[in-house]
Amino acid sequence: MLKLYGFAVSNYYNMVKFALLEKGMAFEEVPFHPDQSEQSLNISPRGKVPALGTDQGYMSETSVILEYIEETGSGKSLLPSEPFARAQVRALMREIELYIELPARLGYPQAFFGMQIAPALQEKCKLELLAGVAALKRHGKFTPYVAGDSLTLADVYFLYSLDLACAVAQKLFDIDLLADFPQAGKLLAQLNRLESVQKIAADKEANMPEFMAMIKARAQANA
Amino acid sequence: MLKLYGFAVSNYYNMVKFALLEKGMAFEEVPFHPDQSEQSLNISPRGKVPALGTDQGYMSETSVILEYIEETGSGKSLLPSEPFARAQVRALMREIELYIELPARLGYPQAFFGMQIAPALQEKCKLELLAGVAALKRHGKFTPYVAGDSLTLADVYFLYSLDLACAVAQKLFDIDLLADFPQAGKLLAQLNRLESVQKIAADKEANMPEFMAMIKARAQANA
Repeated sequence: MLKLYGFAVSNYYNMVKFALLEKGMAFEEVPFHPDQSEQSLNISPRGKVPALGTDQGYMSETSVILEYIEETGSGKSLLPSEPFARAQVRALMREIELYIELPARLGYPQAFFGMQIAPALQEKCKLELLAGVAALKRHGKFTPYVAGDSLTLADVYFLYSLDLACAVAQKLFDIDLLADFPQAGKLLAQLNRLESVQKIAADKEANMPEFMAMIKARAQANA
Repeated sequence: MLKLYGFAVSNYYNMVKFALLEKGMAFEEVPFHPDQSEQSLNISPRGKVPALGTDQGYMSETSVILEYIEETGSGKSLLPSEPFARAQVRALMREIELYIELPARLGYPQAFFGMQIAPALQEKCKLELLAGVAALKRHGKFTPYVAGDSLTLADVYFLYSLDLACAVAQKLFDIDLLADFPQAGKLLAQLNRLESVQKIAADKEANMPEFMAMIKARAQANA
């Protein structure tokens, strides 16, 4: 059986978990908090979450795991079979990751962990987030899903990136990223009603105290 | 015929050009310097280079274009057909992009354009570059190619990311990223002897004066 390595607070972990649940595939969750030990880096070369354990070995990188699950797994397809349509879904995945999730990530320490980030990082976070959301508004279809009339991997990235990006924009810059983007807010609400998403949210909430204790312990170790 | 939009100084543009040349596919190069105009954003939603023009419309994002070319194009394959091996190549592509190219990119203004970046960005650039190169050293096979005994898309990312990352590390931090990584230096030298790579380098050199003039004009417009 596939093993999903990571923890329930990680948004990238939850992207893979959401895809597996929606496809109805069997998997086992394995708690994994990577550090710089040989054991961790053997599972994930850059020490990142999630990783996937297969009969042939480990693989890392969320987008890679999602493609592998599409290629080898069962259940409904989350990527179109026609190459051009498939490319558009992949482009939306990448645009959400590179231009929304990664800029928002610059702000996570300040938005969620009570730290202060440097002004240069704040500025980069804000400018890139605004441009990234504008690009999604331009490229996404939202009829009602990000790439059209069915759930795809673009929605997987959307669901677990936009929520955090909105929280960062609100907390750091007092900006409502979705004020002028109602179709995105509507899709987020629709996705949040799914049984799979509610299970993932409950697991995240249950994992939060352990995660915050770990963050605190690491901050103290580095102080 | 496929149209490749962008310019010859862009390393991401050159990744796609390298793949097309190695596969022996016909394509037309279309000069494209994206700005925030409707016309640009119609070709690339986030105003990035490269984009690909097809009979069905435009697509953007280098990794997406490379996958599309593999799926629909001709010539030698740059991705293994077996799913686990294919996932390892894709993971290496992503690791090189996210953990080497993107951190190095933080340093480009200082390394190549005479600007000074903030200390917080310098620190992020340095820490992430070192960790990214360590991850590649751990995960890459270099026998002699990044993912094994044949040229793959991982080499495409490697070739057009490591050269710039090395220049940034040298200029900003006086660090030789490959000092302890001879297999990478050897592969770079081997790839640089390819006819396709020499053509791309000559086109880049020819495009450089126009590119630097454009950078200077934009800096003056923003001053």
